[in-house]
Amino acid sequence: MRINGTAYRTIWLEADGWGVVIIDQTRLPHEFVTVTLRTLDDVVTAIRDMWVRGAPLIGATAAYGMALAARADCSDAALKRAYFMLHATRPTAINLKWALDEMMAALLPLPQASRAEAAYASAGAIADDDVAINSAIGEHGFGLIRELWAAKRQTGAERFNVLTHCNAGWLATVDWGTAIAPIYKAFDAGLPIHVWVDETRPRNQGASLTARELNWHGVPHTVIPDNTGGHLMQHGLVDLVIVGTDRTTRNGDVCNKIGTYLKALAAKDNNVPFTVALPSPTIDWTVADGVKEIPIELRDATEVTHIAGKGADGKVATVQLTPDGSPAVNYGFDVTPARLVTWLITERGLCPATPAGLASLFPERAAAE
Amino acid sequence: MRINGTAYRTIWLEADGWGVVIIDQTRLPHEFVTVTLRTLDDVVTAIRDMWVRGAPLIGATAAYGMALAARADCSDAALKRAYFMLHATRPTAINLKWALDEMMAALLPLPQASRAEAAYASAGAIADDDVAINSAIGEHGFGLIRELWAAKRQTGAERFNVLTHCNAGWLATVDWGTAIAPIYKAFDAGLPIHVWVDETRPRNQGASLTARELNWHGVPHTVIPDNTGGHLMQHGLVDLVIVGTDRTTRNGDVCNKIGTYLKALAAKDNNVPFTVALPSPTIDWTVADGVKEIPIELRDATEVTHIAGKGADGKVATVQLTPDGSPAVNYGFDVTPARLVTWLITERGLCPATPAGLASLFPERAAAE
Repeated sequence: MRINGTAYRTIWLEADGWGVVIIDQTRLPHEFVTVTLRTLDDVVTAIRDMWVRGAPLIGATAAYGMALAARADCSDAALKRAYFMLHATRPTAINLKWALDEMMAALLPLPQASRAEAAYASAGAIADDDVAINSAIGEHGFGLIRELWAAKRQTGAERFNVLTHCNAGWLATVDWGTAIAPIYKAFDAGLPIHVWVDETRPRNQGASLTARELNWHGVPHTVIPDNTGGHLMQHGLVDLVIVGTDRTTRNGDVCNKIGTYLKALAAKDNNVPFTVALPSPTIDWTVADGVKEIPIELRDATEVTHIAGKGADGKVATVQLTPDGSPAVNYGFDVTPARLVTWLITERGLCPATPAGLASLFPERAAAE
Repeated sequence: MRINGTAYRTIWLEADGWGVVIIDQTRLPHEFVTVTLRTLDDVVTAIRDMWVRGAPLIGATAAYGMALAARADCSDAALKRAYFMLHATRPTAINLKWALDEMMAALLPLPQASRAEAAYASAGAIADDDVAINSAIGEHGFGLIRELWAAKRQTGAERFNVLTHCNAGWLATVDWGTAIAPIYKAFDAGLPIHVWVDETRPRNQGASLTARELNWHGVPHTVIPDNTGGHLMQHGLVDLVIVGTDRTTRNGDVCNKIGTYLKALAAKDNNVPFTVALPSPTIDWTVADGVKEIPIELRDATEVTHIAGKGADGKVATVQLTPDGSPAVNYGFDVTPARLVTWLITERGLCPATPAGLASLFPERAAAE
């Protein structure tokens, strides 16, 4: 998408053809800094410390991590070690494992001499596929928005309000985004769309990243505390909720950023459609009950007790929010049961959040399990 | 309650007998600063800028504001002007109007010469009554906790987990608190209680004030982002929710800090008892449907876009969280429909959140409307 008129992806190759450039998203929204990753360790750090985040972008970055590893040492042992190290960076995102499995399947059968080149080609294909998938999600989601807006404008309404949680925009993917792709498509088509952006504590990906990218692209939006969505829905101020997902079970249970479940409950209570945009690699066909089976990442408590922002001097500084001696806990994700989800928006179209719904769109995947 | 072993209230008279001392709660949790209010304007500022907050403490502070006004000018016109100015400080808290009405009813019939002295006596009585009411709420709520804990400990559990939102502790009242009073009673009685403290964005009254006072008193607690409660309830980690309220309708609808409604939805979805501690002055017998009828305070957006905390140098600093140019909105409260409330905990005992429940405990108030 565009930053001050220039088209960007979130990950690309350096002019030398092998260094991997990313945007250091921990510096957003106040600074725009790119970093070139040149070793496996660089990539491990970039994923673990969330310089890149968002399930699809994690997958693409991990794929390039395998390419950097293969360039340094393309033995089976080295590739397996890289797989292990990259897999351990973030336990929840299923795309990570999916991308690593794709890379291993592509590389291990090849003679060692051709693995490095093939690894770059495979990583590039994973990135390109992500862009194509997200663009398709955007079109399908835009179809739903267009339909809902056609009904709403009959009532004399002047804008269409979407609420989103966390960042599932282009910064979370290679391009377009998942949850935000339909919003970009609707905005670019001239539909009067406005986005309520959950700030998404504790890491504030909404306030930092979603607001940043909507702002860059010119999409009208308002940042709200995570506590606000229920009140807005009670008063008819939300027409549609769209969120992303880190992992969706074959039953349609949705694991996404902590707090998503609370918004789904409020949407249900107020008859607001609650939708989840998901590229199919995000579906975990091996898991049925998300609440019982998906491990939830427990992150460092300092992400709750401290926060970074721009100080009066324009420099980014970190401040402590809690009193000395008060502990905090930091669950990264929660699971929204399928019964609260109105539609899943995939690259193949919309389906209900049910085993039959998912199987109807992805019969070959469902049958394979 | 205690601060480092010393008993405090949140509001008291200066040694000179007329200055009104408060704790500047905007400086918590990192600094403990008291301020002496000597004019009506001081009190208006203290309430409007939230040096004091919490419905019962706002009521008591406003009462002392009337006393300071009467001391300066005890004419009918001056008292009415003071009433108007104080009433305009915070539109949502019903205790504010209740305390001001009590003061006017006590003062207007008196000869002007005796009004100032009577005003201090009346304000003192309002403060003392608040302490007595909250202690009674604490006893009744503790009864419920004791009963739930008796059942839970049979299962081999080692602690009893209460979740609370915002600050309805002693810092929100004159002493004891409302929602936290039962917790203090349970803790002081040796029950193994642990409190999940919602940080309560945007003003972080949970992380700043509830954590601060539980920490001072020694009650085990953990600060969590507001997004976390649903996940905890899904996994059996919350035994009871207790929140305060700024205004409760005669139907039992509960207006409280923004985000309360989302926790009530999660409690309902997971069969966790959701309770509201309320001193009876918080009941607005003139209102039935809280969602439709209660005006919701819209506060300054900078409370969302900026946040204060302790910097690396130990000084409190404010940082900007959102990108330049992204707007924010800041609704102060939301309304939890009575159907989501398991019990109301009042100074006269527990009742269901229904017109009949409230009328059974307060027949004289219900009949008067």
